[in-house]
Amino acid sequence: MNAHDVHEQALLGFLGGTGPHGRGLATRLAAAGHRVLIGSRDRDRSAEVAGTVREAVPSAEVSAGDNDEVARRSAVVFVTVPYEAQEKLLPPLADALDGKVVVSCVNPLRFDEQGPVPLPVPDGSAAQECQRLLPNARVVSGFLNISSVKLAKVHDTLADHVLLCGDDTHAKTLVAELVESVAHLRAVDAGPLRLSGPVEDLTAVLLSVNRRYKVRAGLALTGLADQVPAR
Amino acid sequence: MNAHDVHEQALLGFLGGTGPHGRGLATRLAAAGHRVLIGSRDRDRSAEVAGTVREAVPSAEVSAGDNDEVARRSAVVFVTVPYEAQEKLLPPLADALDGKVVVSCVNPLRFDEQGPVPLPVPDGSAAQECQRLLPNARVVSGFLNISSVKLAKVHDTLADHVLLCGDDTHAKTLVAELVESVAHLRAVDAGPLRLSGPVEDLTAVLLSVNRRYKVRAGLALTGLADQVPAR
Repeated sequence: MNAHDVHEQALLGFLGGTGPHGRGLATRLAAAGHRVLIGSRDRDRSAEVAGTVREAVPSAEVSAGDNDEVARRSAVVFVTVPYEAQEKLLPPLADALDGKVVVSCVNPLRFDEQGPVPLPVPDGSAAQECQRLLPNARVVSGFLNISSVKLAKVHDTLADHVLLCGDDTHAKTLVAELVESVAHLRAVDAGPLRLSGPVEDLTAVLLSVNRRYKVRAGLALTGLADQVPAR
Repeated sequence: MNAHDVHEQALLGFLGGTGPHGRGLATRLAAAGHRVLIGSRDRDRSAEVAGTVREAVPSAEVSAGDNDEVARRSAVVFVTVPYEAQEKLLPPLADALDGKVVVSCVNPLRFDEQGPVPLPVPDGSAAQECQRLLPNARVVSGFLNISSVKLAKVHDTLADHVLLCGDDTHAKTLVAELVESVAHLRAVDAGPLRLSGPVEDLTAVLLSVNRRYKVRAGLALTGLADQVPAR
């Protein structure tokens, strides 16, 4: 499968697509013309969320299933579960995800009285843990720092840079094409998968900024003007 | 001391000010009208670097000294040494830095054949280690993600957001004023000192982007338009 195929026909699946991040991403990518498949442990719940995506994007091709069906049927699979859930969720799906592009959208963090803080991850990052649990998948981390709420509001313009980390160049290029199929989003190749940790952990910082300034902050890089189309 | 004093008269000192980051920051802050004091283990070296700052900013009030003198004389002290150096450098300066605002500009990282990668830090971040080594200093981390080269080119416009982490609100406000005394730089209160780690580690990601795109990337946040003056 190449990037062109992704644009034209590939099914994008969301493991844990009923949470805010999965729902936001699925809605925004459906609005960009992609076929999406919402997954969940609970089929009724995924059917319900598929309905809300259809409501937001009446032209969307949206279907619903359980996580197992998402892993089997999708060309590209987004992991959008809470960090704590992936350790149990992913291993039984490893065979179905063999050779597939898997986008890790997982931010390990917790909240206490001081606000958000990253969780320590023995593998270094949620994305590296995902790769360990799915040894034959082509894992790319991305969409880590982008507001779920903004993603779901399909008429709001996003001006974020989406940092991608991964060790499989072709998979990273394909995910970059998906990013840039959304108007005004720009993909930035941030390097190997081992750099996903700092990008994941930055989300706790952005949530801290959100709380202080009552905003929904996202990420952009300065100094990329010549390489990245103007926003 | 309040923020107004900092603008008018306070001496800004740079521990390890002869390295690229210290030199870049001192040059840019001197260009913004501040009095700066370049420190180093080696007085000849700091005098030499003070000369290059004077050359870049002929109007600048620049002096040179050793690190001990920087700690004693400065109102605000910037730690701009390589991470590995601070463990030995800081403890003997703890008395001189008692009650002072200390800006941790230290990014713990290393390079290997795969490029830059963050170093693990037992205290959680270089800034938290700095606070442990200087228990009575008012530590704020900042200027972590900004290119040393761009800082030193005082005629280049910077459009970065400078994320500040710290537990002392007044110290953080004072450092924010210093940030915003540089035209077009914007300070963002990113939360407590414990969130400095993700911001420090992001520098490895930015250096990875620099290598890939042949740029000098910096950081900006989207979604802050109403809170932060337009750039």
